[in-house]
Amino acid sequence: MEENKQEIIDEKDETQNEESEQTVVEETDEVEQLRQEKEEINNRLLRLQADYDNFRRRTQKEKEADRKYRSQSLVEELIPALDNFERALQVEVDGDAAKNFANGMKMVYDQFKAALEKEGVEEIPAKGEEFDPHMHQAIMQVEDENYESNIVVEELQKGYRLKDRVIRPSMVKVNQ
Amino acid sequence: MEENKQEIIDEKDETQNEESEQTVVEETDEVEQLRQEKEEINNRLLRLQADYDNFRRRTQKEKEADRKYRSQSLVEELIPALDNFERALQVEVDGDAAKNFANGMKMVYDQFKAALEKEGVEEIPAKGEEFDPHMHQAIMQVEDENYESNIVVEELQKGYRLKDRVIRPSMVKVNQ
Repeated sequence: MEENKQEIIDEKDETQNEESEQTVVEETDEVEQLRQEKEEINNRLLRLQADYDNFRRRTQKEKEADRKYRSQSLVEELIPALDNFERALQVEVDGDAAKNFANGMKMVYDQFKAALEKEGVEEIPAKGEEFDPHMHQAIMQVEDENYESNIVVEELQKGYRLKDRVIRPSMVKVNQ
Repeated sequence: MEENKQEIIDEKDETQNEESEQTVVEETDEVEQLRQEKEEINNRLLRLQADYDNFRRRTQKEKEADRKYRSQSLVEELIPALDNFERALQVEVDGDAAKNFANGMKMVYDQFKAALEKEGVEEIPAKGEEFDPHMHQAIMQVEDENYESNIVVEELQKGYRLKDRVIRPSMVKVNQ
């Protein structure tokens, strides 16, 4: 009787033991799975952080470039008007009234040029400069003993740049 | 002897059982901790995603506004020159040569205006319009039977807007 009772207890114990082991195995699986999920989310977090940082840097650069050259489209529209302004001013006028009128127009021209310069628009230096294909467009080649080789001898149309960007190259005659 | 052995086995079993229970408790703690960590990282991921989305939206809006009003600073510089251009053109000139010169200048003026209009610059309508404090600056109040109350009677200086943004209000006389 005593032994029989013990056997029953033993069996019960075994059952409990098996259950415990099974639970431990399940828990370990769960721990492993949770670790993997945590790692996966952490990797997504790191990738997203890197994406975000890149986007911010790129945006900042684009913003600076946009701001630097913001006037470009209006400048491009104004340059042909400025060409005509210069051509019109080259006409000689007679008489005091006409001369006063022309002087007034010259002042208006200077004011336009000053407004453009304030925004970073500059004439490209041409005559006497070494020919630079990035800023000068060679329309003619000449042979002129008074200049060295590859030097701009004459400017046929003014060129303009906005800060470091060429908006329109100068049209020039270059010495061979 | 038989009983004694059983007791030893029993004791051993008990020890094993305790160990198993302890392991289960530890595993449960670890599962709980991992769950919390996973949840925390997941929350950081969600917050970062929301931040990133907001930043992208804000950046896009800023970019559009920057682009829309990109010419503003150059336009502000050019408006006083345009005023002087108009004033200079109002001078009457005598003689064919001077008249030709003045006509040439009028064409240059039109070209400037067209370039500005292409970029979205418009004169603010004033004379005959209802007074609008967002676009008109009242310099004088008059009493004029020919106009209704609160109507702009005369424009003293042109106003300009760039798209929907007032760059300079018109200076006007308003009917009481």
